Amino acid sequence: MPDHQKPALGVGVVGYAFMGRAHSQAWRNVGAFFDLPYRPVMAALVGRSRPAVDEAAARMGWASVETDWKALLRRDDVQVIDVCTPGDSHAEIAVAALEAGKHVLCEKPLANTVAEAEAMAAAAAQARERGVRSMVAFNYRRVPAVALAHRMVAEGRLGQIRHVRAQYLQDWIADPEFPLVWRLQRDKAGSGALGDIGAHIIDVAQFVTGDRLVGVSALTETFVKERPLAEASAGLAAGGSATARGEVSVDDAALFIGRLDGGGLASFEATRFATGRKNSLRLEVNGSAGSLAFDFEAMNELWFHDNTVDPDTAGFRRILVTEPTHPYAGAWWPPGHALGYEHAFTHEVADFTTAIADGTDPAPSFADGLQVQRVLAAVEESAAGGSGWTAIQTTEAV
Amino acid sequence: MPDHQKPALGVGVVGYAFMGRAHSQAWRNVGAFFDLPYRPVMAALVGRSRPAVDEAAARMGWASVETDWKALLRRDDVQVIDVCTPGDSHAEIAVAALEAGKHVLCEKPLANTVAEAEAMAAAAAQARERGVRSMVAFNYRRVPAVALAHRMVAEGRLGQIRHVRAQYLQDWIADPEFPLVWRLQRDKAGSGALGDIGAHIIDVAQFVTGDRLVGVSALTETFVKERPLAEASAGLAAGGSATARGEVSVDDAALFIGRLDGGGLASFEATRFATGRKNSLRLEVNGSAGSLAFDFEAMNELWFHDNTVDPDTAGFRRILVTEPTHPYAGAWWPPGHALGYEHAFTHEVADFTTAIADGTDPAPSFADGLQVQRVLAAVEESAAGGSGWTAIQTTEAV
Amino acid sequence: MPDHQKPALGVGVVGYAFMGRAHSQAWRNVGAFFDLPYRPVMAALVGRSRPAVDEAAARMGWASVETDWKALLRRDDVQVIDVCTPGDSHAEIAVAALEAGKHVLCEKPLANTVAEAEAMAAAAAQARERGVRSMVAFNYRRVPAVALAHRMVAEGRLGQIRHVRAQYLQDWIADPEFPLVWRLQRDKAGSGALGDIGAHIIDVAQFVTGDRLVGVSALTETFVKERPLAEASAGLAAGGSATARGEVSVDDAALFIGRLDGGGLASFEATRFATGRKNSLRLEVNGSAGSLAFDFEAMNELWFHDNTVDPDTAGFRRILVTEPTHPYAGAWWPPGHALGYEHAFTHEVADFTTAIADGTDPAPSFADGLQVQRVLAAVEESAAGGSGWTAIQTTEAV
Amino acid sequence: MPDHQKPALGVGVVGYAFMGRAHSQAWRNVGAFFDLPYRPVMAALVGRSRPAVDEAAARMGWASVETDWKALLRRDDVQVIDVCTPGDSHAEIAVAALEAGKHVLCEKPLANTVAEAEAMAAAAAQARERGVRSMVAFNYRRVPAVALAHRMVAEGRLGQIRHVRAQYLQDWIADPEFPLVWRLQRDKAGSGALGDIGAHIIDVAQFVTGDRLVGVSALTETFVKERPLAEASAGLAAGGSATARGEVSVDDAALFIGRLDGGGLASFEATRFATGRKNSLRLEVNGSAGSLAFDFEAMNELWFHDNTVDPDTAGFRRILVTEPTHPYAGAWWPPGHALGYEHAFTHEVADFTTAIADGTDPAPSFADGLQVQRVLAAVEESAAGGSGWTAIQTTEAV
Repeated sequence: MPDHQKPALGVGVVGYAFMGRAHSQAWRNVGAFFDLPYRPVMAALVGRSRPAVDEAAARMGWASVETDWKALLRRDDVQVIDVCTPGDSHAEIAVAALEAGKHVLCEKPLANTVAEAEAMAAAAAQARERGVRSMVAFNYRRVPAVALAHRMVAEGRLGQIRHVRAQYLQDWIADPEFPLVWRLQRDKAGSGALGDIGAHIIDVAQFVTGDRLVGVSALTETFVKERPLAEASAGLAAGGSATARGEVSVDDAALFIGRLDGGGLASFEATRFATGRKNSLRLEVNGSAGSLAFDFEAMNELWFHDNTVDPDTAGFRRILVTEPTHPYAGAWWPPGHALGYEHAFTHEVADFTTAIADGTDPAPSFADGLQVQRVLAAVEESAAGGSGWTAIQTTEAV
Repeated sequence: MPDHQKPALGVGVVGYAFMGRAHSQAWRNVGAFFDLPYRPVMAALVGRSRPAVDEAAARMGWASVETDWKALLRRDDVQVIDVCTPGDSHAEIAVAALEAGKHVLCEKPLANTVAEAEAMAAAAAQARERGVRSMVAFNYRRVPAVALAHRMVAEGRLGQIRHVRAQYLQDWIADPEFPLVWRLQRDKAGSGALGDIGAHIIDVAQFVTGDRLVGVSALTETFVKERPLAEASAGLAAGGSATARGEVSVDDAALFIGRLDGGGLASFEATRFATGRKNSLRLEVNGSAGSLAFDFEAMNELWFHDNTVDPDTAGFRRILVTEPTHPYAGAWWPPGHALGYEHAFTHEVADFTTAIADGTDPAPSFADGLQVQRVLAAVEESAAGGSGWTAIQTTEAV
Repeated sequence: MPDHQKPALGVGVVGYAFMGRAHSQAWRNVGAFFDLPYRPVMAALVGRSRPAVDEAAARMGWASVETDWKALLRRDDVQVIDVCTPGDSHAEIAVAALEAGKHVLCEKPLANTVAEAEAMAAAAAQARERGVRSMVAFNYRRVPAVALAHRMVAEGRLGQIRHVRAQYLQDWIADPEFPLVWRLQRDKAGSGALGDIGAHIIDVAQFVTGDRLVGVSALTETFVKERPLAEASAGLAAGGSATARGEVSVDDAALFIGRLDGGGLASFEATRFATGRKNSLRLEVNGSAGSLAFDFEAMNELWFHDNTVDPDTAGFRRILVTEPTHPYAGAWWPPGHALGYEHAFTHEVADFTTAIADGTDPAPSFADGLQVQRVLAAVEESAAGGSGWTAIQTTEAV
Repeated sequence: MPDHQKPALGVGVVGYAFMGRAHSQAWRNVGAFFDLPYRPVMAALVGRSRPAVDEAAARMGWASVETDWKALLRRDDVQVIDVCTPGDSHAEIAVAALEAGKHVLCEKPLANTVAEAEAMAAAAAQARERGVRSMVAFNYRRVPAVALAHRMVAEGRLGQIRHVRAQYLQDWIADPEFPLVWRLQRDKAGSGALGDIGAHIIDVAQFVTGDRLVGVSALTETFVKERPLAEASAGLAAGGSATARGEVSVDDAALFIGRLDGGGLASFEATRFATGRKNSLRLEVNGSAGSLAFDFEAMNELWFHDNTVDPDTAGFRRILVTEPTHPYAGAWWPPGHALGYEHAFTHEVADFTTAIADGTDPAPSFADGLQVQRVLAAVEESAAGGSGWTAIQTTEAV
């Protein structure tokens, strides 16, 4: 169908910081590369500060702005609400949006607590009955290399999964003078490295293997207990004298080991203190028939060892995931022409738009998000209780 | 200045195939990430087939279409003409556009012959007197890692340049049944791997080192002399019987060695028969104080050996070129969040737009494009004449 | 001192399988590359089967053979007893040798139980009073890259250690039809992957960081519970019909997380089921001032990120550990000329010989070996008891 | 056959510097790992300075010394003469040895001139009639990864060879104050980087592909024209004042491109000015069915792209060349346990010994060495004559 004849799908994004920018980029470009049943329209951008949201909307191409997200609920030109705020407001916005009949794409982690996530999953289940769709924005699933890894495991190329090693390594707060931003405050962020980046590797590991964690044993640590207040820090930069410090109330790093329901063993590490690692989301999976390895710092590459190959010429091979047959890649450029970080978001909104049009359930669902939340809670419980084995509650069908 | 108050810069792109798509993507996104003096407006897309150009314009977000590029010359809402056609039409379009007072961004190689390139450079020099700007679209210069390499050499981090190794390796025509597309026909493409991808490594090598080739000794080869006609090939796919073949009139591969005006030695190889290499534009530079290595297949990485470091801890280091201080990178995402192929085009149009606004000369100029054309001509001359040493004519100031 | 004037140091090696070969190679070559105070003499090789040990001794260059290790205790031409047998005989041989006044080099893990290791450490402490030396053969410490890593941490190049990731990945028993060799039997091997290769990464991690584990939380697993008996398997190869299987009584894989006494977090994984990983002993250490990474599959490389370098040009650098100033490397070949697996053993016997001559304490001592044994025991205890936190007993000064 | 019953094969090595040490190491160890028909005996080491050769012989395990290589000709206990001297004495020693009925292993390049090499090849052909064997010591052929590459090409795994890229990059004379050692003097070394390391990549490229160069076009350069005299340099280190400099009479770097008799194109570069590259002998081969890549700095790895694999999972794979089925590797350690630089020499003497016993012709023959010499001469001729195409004389059967 020619683009101009397609029905419009009005989108409102709440938040215009890092995630708001990434989602804006996705909505702006998705139609140029994916042949979607709907024509996404960048209807409204929401932010509390009018001048700032005006400026952001103009730059990113939004048709209008709102300073209160609730205004979106009443707008007929908005069918999708895309939640890009910190975790403490996810539940309120998402539940209200679903109840108002808006399809909801919500950033991860789904919520700051299991209780919030349960409420959200319940709201999503009810909304689904009315044809209203919801999805959690675990974007890394839609990096072509990760999606290819998932497909290869599903095809049986790895055989029986024995081992998963998942790490998400960053270093942006290794400096003890880095200020106490919202991501370091429990009331806003829920947790630290665990929920911010640990949630991603839990999702990626489960998505790729098709297995789910049944229990964990965990350690967490806060290496730097106090940091300059962000405001004081800004004052300092402006020439003021700053001594005010506040408590870091979240983890700097979380390590856990666990078992998968398929019989494999898994280890996880999320940290913001891995000096020199900027955004190293790594996954390695060993199965009886083959192995896979991935590092987001080389995001267009998937390493595959095919254990059925003659040992004489076997070895980990670097698949450049830019072939037309690779997930998502065919929509873009010729082989060898890399994609970047932002493209996974474009794939995410493409899939979400298609699911809305087709009336199918997009994944990961809010129930999937709730299950990840339960893993996060089990990690915290184990770490707080002598690292003992902590079972993950099974998510009942909702 | 707020975006909506910025003056518009109307753009017309001629061509909507591979390069047309890449340039469209750049013009659509540049304003969201770069704070430009002008607001680029996607005014018109040009293509000879009305239904096809209509469809492409709708998908890529162009406000109007034209089926004759000459129409752009008369449109007051078009200030920039961006030439994305095969090489055989570059000279005609670019010269006419410059004479009509339009700023011109022209795909590479600048032309199919030195004579055409000379005419274009002359037109550019004249237009410049009237404040009209022109630039050749050697996009790889604006990959952040390549731009960083250039900066590091300019800062003296490599010392005296001794060696350059440049390769551009692809494999998309290794199969002898791949059809005789326009890029394999001399009348349309000018040359084969040499002009298509060899031109890129000539530009990148000279840009990074700041040196220019003074002469070359060369070999070229056409491994597969005849190929199925593209039309026949399409017919075959449609069930027809195809035996029609045509002559491949360009090189499949070109190798040359040369000397740089700074005293270094250089080797170049461009091929479409390097099985398994998809888009491997590689550069390695050795200087007295350090070395650099780059491969576009890992485009966010620049490898640097600092020869002034204690040998005990010296080694090639992988710089992930995503830091806020790296060229272009600060406009995008946090460290470790990769850019892709298309971003270099966005950087290209950002720089071109800025140059237009500032009244400065963008680089690479048409004179730079002419100089690359002279290298290409010398390579062909040497290869045709027993690989003997062939001096590169110096581009006089124009 | 000219070699022929140096006093002889008679060596007897017990065992001629994998480790016996590696130690023989070391004793044969050490004098040619290291200027030692003694001239090692390959006096006697010990094995229970006379024809086999005769053949091995002739091939590997031993001057005589014994079929009972006790014969070495009485030989005046033997000053060093080098124990290369399975773990179940380490304690008996080593204690008797020390009591007989022989210097003892003992393969790892030191013993099969903490009790045996305690007895050995006590015997070593007593022998030391009489000038008799002992050392555990944790060979990977003496890979130049690992020794360089240790030196760099000791020099403060990494600052405060935050994270250690240690993995030892092999895949040689991933096939369920691989037979039940002695390494898969608890009575002979003590444990499985844990003691065999897990012991190495415990030692390497503690050696490089200078920190010790204070407690762990662990999981172990035996993926394949029964295997063909080795004898049956051999019979099968010889044409017989084999159905006899026996129980695998050790772990196939062990994962644990722990804390270091310096405040860092550490994760460990030892497995023989990591398909495609042949001998991947990996260590990654993140400190406040820098990071290191190593993989034995590329054993001549050490990766270093110097966090004090300008972010613009910082990155993990590949140090090729073949410079004359690198540990051990200067004794061998010019830069860039790699060493292999066996060289670490040569370094081991060089250091042991020097310590004997100098009357200094070689490291790792039997007390160090005992401490590793306590970590192994804590891992097994934790894994058996719901993965709960299990403290490592501090090794008192002995 | 038990080792002690094997007939002895007496070896005399001429030279005890770098190559003498490497060959000594090979002769000392070969019998312990390879089951040879003869038992090599380290009979005599030859050097002009008696104290120095005494010391070297004692350290490396030689049974006797000579100060005149001619003494070897008369010794009945010497059957093999292994020539490890600079190139200017190869012809004299080798020809005399062959005439005296001694088997000859000669370091590369075979000689300093084509005329010398022709004389040597002629002597070898005559000696062969009398059952006397000769071989050139192109050691890199016997690195397992290179031997595997050869085998894979021979098996047809690469199909039609299209491209060869061969580089040998070092940096040990990048510092202009590095002294004028013998390798920088034409009368002793014959040529510079070209003969020293360029000869290796010519041999490796031809060995792996099975093709021979038919012609070349070349450039050479001497970046640093004068250097401190070695003696003066030593004096300076000893506190003297050194101003004496001498002319560098060989090339610092050589680049050439050529054609293979199989129809492929090839490029070569040999340099001692590639800062940060220590011993980077690289080979990349592209064929219609696959590609191979190798870098000696990671000598246990061979990279293979199988172009017959489904593009979805195709990619360059890292073969760790340590499997029991890989060339030479089975004689050593288990998979994943690396070999080093010196092992290729052990393989070399193993193969030479076997050929002597079996009465077969070892490779590379002196005729092969002559052919390489002709390539070197053609490179120098082309470089001296405007880089024009220079055909390589075909080596007639000798």
